[in-house]
Amino acid sequence: MYITQGLHRHIQAKPHATAIRYRGRGITYAEFGERVARLAGALKTLGVNSGDRVAMLSANSLRYIEYYLAVPWADAVVNPVNYRWSAAEIIYSLDDSQTTVLLVDDNYKGLAERIVAESKTVRTVIYADDGEAPQGLLSYEQLIAQSEPVEDARRGGDSLLGIFYTGGTTGFPKGVMLSHNSVAFSSMASQQSGRCNATTRFLHSMPMFHLADFAAMVSLFSSGGTHVVLPAFTPKAVLEAIDHERINEILLAPTMIQMLLDWCEADPAARDYDLSALERVGYGASPITPTLLDRARSMFPSAGFTQGYGMTELSPVATFLSADYHTPEHQKSGKMYSAGQPYACVEVRIADEHDRELPRGTVGQILVRGPNVMLGYWNKPEATAEALRGGWMHTGDGGYMDEEGFVYVCDRLKDMIVSGGENVYSAEVETAIASHPAVALSAVIGIPCERWGETVHAVVLLKPGRVASADEIVAHCREHIAGYKVPRSVEFRDVLPLSNVGKVLKVELRKPFWEGRQRGVS
Amino acid sequence: MYITQGLHRHIQAKPHATAIRYRGRGITYAEFGERVARLAGALKTLGVNSGDRVAMLSANSLRYIEYYLAVPWADAVVNPVNYRWSAAEIIYSLDDSQTTVLLVDDNYKGLAERIVAESKTVRTVIYADDGEAPQGLLSYEQLIAQSEPVEDARRGGDSLLGIFYTGGTTGFPKGVMLSHNSVAFSSMASQQSGRCNATTRFLHSMPMFHLADFAAMVSLFSSGGTHVVLPAFTPKAVLEAIDHERINEILLAPTMIQMLLDWCEADPAARDYDLSALERVGYGASPITPTLLDRARSMFPSAGFTQGYGMTELSPVATFLSADYHTPEHQKSGKMYSAGQPYACVEVRIADEHDRELPRGTVGQILVRGPNVMLGYWNKPEATAEALRGGWMHTGDGGYMDEEGFVYVCDRLKDMIVSGGENVYSAEVETAIASHPAVALSAVIGIPCERWGETVHAVVLLKPGRVASADEIVAHCREHIAGYKVPRSVEFRDVLPLSNVGKVLKVELRKPFWEGRQRGVS
Repeated sequence: MYITQGLHRHIQAKPHATAIRYRGRGITYAEFGERVARLAGALKTLGVNSGDRVAMLSANSLRYIEYYLAVPWADAVVNPVNYRWSAAEIIYSLDDSQTTVLLVDDNYKGLAERIVAESKTVRTVIYADDGEAPQGLLSYEQLIAQSEPVEDARRGGDSLLGIFYTGGTTGFPKGVMLSHNSVAFSSMASQQSGRCNATTRFLHSMPMFHLADFAAMVSLFSSGGTHVVLPAFTPKAVLEAIDHERINEILLAPTMIQMLLDWCEADPAARDYDLSALERVGYGASPITPTLLDRARSMFPSAGFTQGYGMTELSPVATFLSADYHTPEHQKSGKMYSAGQPYACVEVRIADEHDRELPRGTVGQILVRGPNVMLGYWNKPEATAEALRGGWMHTGDGGYMDEEGFVYVCDRLKDMIVSGGENVYSAEVETAIASHPAVALSAVIGIPCERWGETVHAVVLLKPGRVASADEIVAHCREHIAGYKVPRSVEFRDVLPLSNVGKVLKVELRKPFWEGRQRGVS
Repeated sequence: MYITQGLHRHIQAKPHATAIRYRGRGITYAEFGERVARLAGALKTLGVNSGDRVAMLSANSLRYIEYYLAVPWADAVVNPVNYRWSAAEIIYSLDDSQTTVLLVDDNYKGLAERIVAESKTVRTVIYADDGEAPQGLLSYEQLIAQSEPVEDARRGGDSLLGIFYTGGTTGFPKGVMLSHNSVAFSSMASQQSGRCNATTRFLHSMPMFHLADFAAMVSLFSSGGTHVVLPAFTPKAVLEAIDHERINEILLAPTMIQMLLDWCEADPAARDYDLSALERVGYGASPITPTLLDRARSMFPSAGFTQGYGMTELSPVATFLSADYHTPEHQKSGKMYSAGQPYACVEVRIADEHDRELPRGTVGQILVRGPNVMLGYWNKPEATAEALRGGWMHTGDGGYMDEEGFVYVCDRLKDMIVSGGENVYSAEVETAIASHPAVALSAVIGIPCERWGETVHAVVLLKPGRVASADEIVAHCREHIAGYKVPRSVEFRDVLPLSNVGKVLKVELRKPFWEGRQRGVS
């Protein structure tokens, strides 16, 4: 399979249907296909050969989608860059992957100068934006205008589709190598789960460099539907798009849902948007709390909520919780707090430190096997062998499985708090705190303690205009969870540090407590 | 991907759910998985090594499904045998594929003796049926009881899944090599088309050696549902099963639908069956006529009809016509008579004799590209190179494509009638004849003619109790199709020769006319 396959079908069957809408304008499948074939021609003229890496450093745009299709069309390999990283991390990832050609939009033309000066491998930079190209950069639109369309190389199967760098927030990033088949199987499994079909109008509101959005893009090219592109996530832009573009499907991190809700509550005019087109909200990156889900339901009453759990190394989904399990009944049964069951192309096992399968209900490491698993880490044979030992991807996440195969992700194993020999999973404590009516968001971490090794510490963000004391939070937790899991200390903040997918950056929260010390859990 | 993948998920998530029902009894996923793992263990003990071929010669049964899963589980390759073939053809296919182990049911124990005597490669025969094994045959049930379950080899990806012999009705059969990925992509595309989900109760009424049924089986193991197995197709058994087993999905050839309808019309008691559970009827092998579809609709009012067009070499589907196009509106638009649009993992092109793409509406050869295409013909590098030249599977079928990518299959190219230099496609003439109220079924062939090369000849089967003359049929056709397409001769029969998938065997009909002559179209 090859990720450009769906594009060929839609050019043939509905050349005049709208493929993509961006900044209020539409482009048909035929027009889009022509631009992709010309961009691929331009890349070949620039000396891009089979398997070469071509990077993109840009906010979301129509051209970002063209890049994703044109690179494999030209028999090359994509390398979408995380623009939240430092310049040093970005240059590291470009040089590590020996990327020669880089595309940038107007936001990153300044950074491009530094990259050209410092990178050992990047030799060509294309200005993928409107208007004239700055000095030293090639014009994307001129390349498209001047190049002849070429035949699709149909790069596919187990060959390398892209190098997706990950982990930049916790050290130098690792390049995850994914094949066309891995992403294609994941995309077909997502459609088997009821996501993306020919009538879908999908809103790209998450960063396109992130695999969650890219995988949704591939699904949508497979099923045929319309991509609507937001340059970046803002609550106002998302709600406007749902209304004006009749968006029926969207992916959001729980913190993005939170921001949408907070923005609406703060501004009554926001209630005027017509959000009734929305049918499916996919969330991931972290579980949703019951409180947040209840609020989200009242905002999007027409939508079903689904959860995907996974990581870049898994193209990216491992387990899926369907809308059927987002009900009061499954709030009671507990299934609503699970990450769902293995995806249609995935096997999951919960294992001990020797990779032996554990009984149901026992917490261990989540292992994953299937065609969605990465080929390996670029240029890191040891890390690859370690992650894929025994044929299973070792996620590094802790979790357990119930009798019906539902997986409960407790927390990143390295985030697990070991207090007095007892394991405390942050997610459970956070769920308890979130059910307090004054709480908007919380993050629970372990902090050093002479006596217990670590103790449970909660960082809490209150809802606007609400108050609660540390004692109230602690008393509330005591009603819901075991004594040793109750936070020993509570701290209030006005803002929490978030990653590009809206995860709370616990590394940042932990830093001041652990400076100069070593945590026991690796 | 590997075809045993779904089985692992269902054993984990719903071990006590019914996987298969056969002869009124059910077997759970856990029990079925245990038997598969033990049968795989037995095969290994019998010396079956990685990539060895293991054949099955049997009517449909629970054990047939166990065979299909256990062989790849043991890292071996399936070879399901077409039991309609002559002994010579069967032995040819076993020796050609160097099959060493053969499973037979009670129907074929006699044939097994001859195979053992004449085959150069078969050295072990397993009696896969109830009761004691005949002299010289191993007992399937004893093997299962005595063998330890083994770990699944998880044979998969582009490795060989099976050799599926085809073409036995027109000469010695060719072995089509399909990989796990080919069948897996096809199976996931079928679910994308709305077939097979976790609540499906599928009736295996077509022969299990046929790829159409096998592909449905793989889909159902992917989605998780219940297989209900009929040993063989009879109208009574099918209707009884739909009623008693609450079947909601079935695959049928149009001639099978015809037989069901005729049987019901002949016996009013048949109307007592409750057929209301049926939701999806998939048909293929040949297009359905409007008359037949109307009758089928009145029999199965709750069902949507879908068509798949393809061949063994395509795992097996190339194009798919959804239920949405089986409406009076699309009877008028003509789309109902098409074979639908390319499947979700398939590209289709209509090409001239030099493989150049033809304009829409022009008849040419149907070419197919995608991950569903076979690896090649076993031991036939020249036939493989010829069939797959330029990266496209050459189907040998004639057809055209409309502006929206719908494919209209005219006929097998070799069945096309060339009369006075004009091409006549049998399907078009058959559709015209079928719309005559007295006609049950017809087959249109070319017969030799000094003046025109060939002329159009119709073989017609009337409905029970109805009469029509040859002149009436000709006059009726004259109203619907061009003069040169109207049959020059009409012949009435009480029965038509059918293949195992219910296709009229035109080879048989042509034989008496062409004995000792050469047809111009190859």
